[in-house]
Amino acid sequence: MSQRIVIALGGNALGKNLPEQMIAVKGTAKAIADLIERGDQVVVAHGNGPQVGMINTAMTTLSREDSSHPMAPMSVCTAMSQGYIGYDLQNALREELLNRGIRKPVSTILTQVEVDPQDPAFQNPSKPIGAFMTEAEAEEMRRRGNAVMEDAGRGWRRCVASPLPKAVVEIDAIRALVDAGQVVVACGGGGIPVFPTEGNHLKGAGAVVDKDFASELLAELLDADALIILTAVEKVAVNFGKPDQKWLDHMTPAEARGYAAQGQFAPGSMLPKVQAALKFAESKPGRAALITLLEKAGEGMAGKTGTTVSQ
Amino acid sequence: MSQRIVIALGGNALGKNLPEQMIAVKGTAKAIADLIERGDQVVVAHGNGPQVGMINTAMTTLSREDSSHPMAPMSVCTAMSQGYIGYDLQNALREELLNRGIRKPVSTILTQVEVDPQDPAFQNPSKPIGAFMTEAEAEEMRRRGNAVMEDAGRGWRRCVASPLPKAVVEIDAIRALVDAGQVVVACGGGGIPVFPTEGNHLKGAGAVVDKDFASELLAELLDADALIILTAVEKVAVNFGKPDQKWLDHMTPAEARGYAAQGQFAPGSMLPKVQAALKFAESKPGRAALITLLEKAGEGMAGKTGTTVSQ
Repeated sequence: MSQRIVIALGGNALGKNLPEQMIAVKGTAKAIADLIERGDQVVVAHGNGPQVGMINTAMTTLSREDSSHPMAPMSVCTAMSQGYIGYDLQNALREELLNRGIRKPVSTILTQVEVDPQDPAFQNPSKPIGAFMTEAEAEEMRRRGNAVMEDAGRGWRRCVASPLPKAVVEIDAIRALVDAGQVVVACGGGGIPVFPTEGNHLKGAGAVVDKDFASELLAELLDADALIILTAVEKVAVNFGKPDQKWLDHMTPAEARGYAAQGQFAPGSMLPKVQAALKFAESKPGRAALITLLEKAGEGMAGKTGTTVSQ
Repeated sequence: MSQRIVIALGGNALGKNLPEQMIAVKGTAKAIADLIERGDQVVVAHGNGPQVGMINTAMTTLSREDSSHPMAPMSVCTAMSQGYIGYDLQNALREELLNRGIRKPVSTILTQVEVDPQDPAFQNPSKPIGAFMTEAEAEEMRRRGNAVMEDAGRGWRRCVASPLPKAVVEIDAIRALVDAGQVVVACGGGGIPVFPTEGNHLKGAGAVVDKDFASELLAELLDADALIILTAVEKVAVNFGKPDQKWLDHMTPAEARGYAAQGQFAPGSMLPKVQAALKFAESKPGRAALITLLEKAGEGMAGKTGTTVSQ
């Protein structure tokens, strides 16, 4: 039976530079086309970690060499990364579908996501982005009002807040295309983070929205049946790396919340995926989230592998 | 009576850097909102000259400093510029409409435009892009397979071909949104130029498509009633700058073609605008093109100013 599915794709799965991305999207397109071929309606959201880092570095380098160009805010870099990734992704998907004789329009909607300026995440910028710097460069960046952090002994990096998404600004456009049976790429990089200010203005936020939470919100707003969160493991495990490690086929939202409270999932890695999955699963009866590998998405939706979170 | 209108906006009207663009889009949004407030369906296409130049320079600088990043092709830079410009433009339009109490979804569709690899333009790259270089830098760029040219005594620049657009790849998505009464930004920078290769692959072309010709094609494909080409003058003139200079209120396609043959319009400037306008006007009975200033678009559509091209 046809289902409406939102897929959350990791930015790391898209490669670190242009040639890597061109190759990576081919595999991604095959996995997504498998679902479309089954008759499912598919919306693709994706991360942009390495890509927005590359663009941020390029724009920073430009502003250093040419003072007529001020530093590009993260919101602008994310907008550029949606263009960069969406172009390759929509192209690869279109090609893979046509190769299978499926004529379905594929397009990318530039997407903004509203965040709350009072979100506590803004008090604690925690997401490292862009190139590594020396301590002196980091100090200069801090003087210009940016947060910086020492990243796991590898050097200094700029870091930004990762607030929760509250609304998807372009939801009507995304819904119109999905309702028309088209394939849509949206919420790239978790969406361009903006917050409402006086009047009807949306101001770009110096932040990056987690793509798993953005995808979850998008899935709720589109009344999707399933949310697929693709990652580097086939299933979620508890007691990971210990003698009693156990791969999970299924969790209820309550079980998932319990495991999370035990500290079973790594923050910034599996934890947000499990949190997004359980939020979606308990948002309405009948909704299910699946966490698995990209190349197992089809099998996972057929109930053969992955970790399903549902009531 | 409600009309379907495609607006072609110049890249120069959008500012040369981030702060300039944020201000420029406000004025642009007011002019476009005037048309929407009249009840017209509006699709906005735009140029990207200064913006894609900025991005191209930033990406070139990055690849010079970090060899893991190869030079970004023009197609990728154009995709990024669609994200960069679309974000500010859709945001400003949304805000201006809400300020007038108009709740209409506004979004940007990342757009690819097919070009013909046999287009004679590829034999004669003529469009200068990006930053100025020394002769030595230009020579190095030529060695790497890029065309370069000396630009009007101001230094050397990379130059690319400007082939004609043959198809708009994402036309179904654009049409679905316009049919749903939404406002769409599309064909940014003339569209990401691609050409079909073996199988169903679309390969990025080292080119820039003229935004007036891309807008004209878009207007034909959407069965628009009007094409508005915005420029730096209120009307088209013949014998420009001479004692017998004459501002034109109206031209038939035949008259426009005649003036063009006399060399009345500057190549790379007014000529492509007049060519796009006359092509649209003769594509189907009842279609009209308007060439005027951004801030005169509403008056022009009311028949009060600008140069109209129609049968």
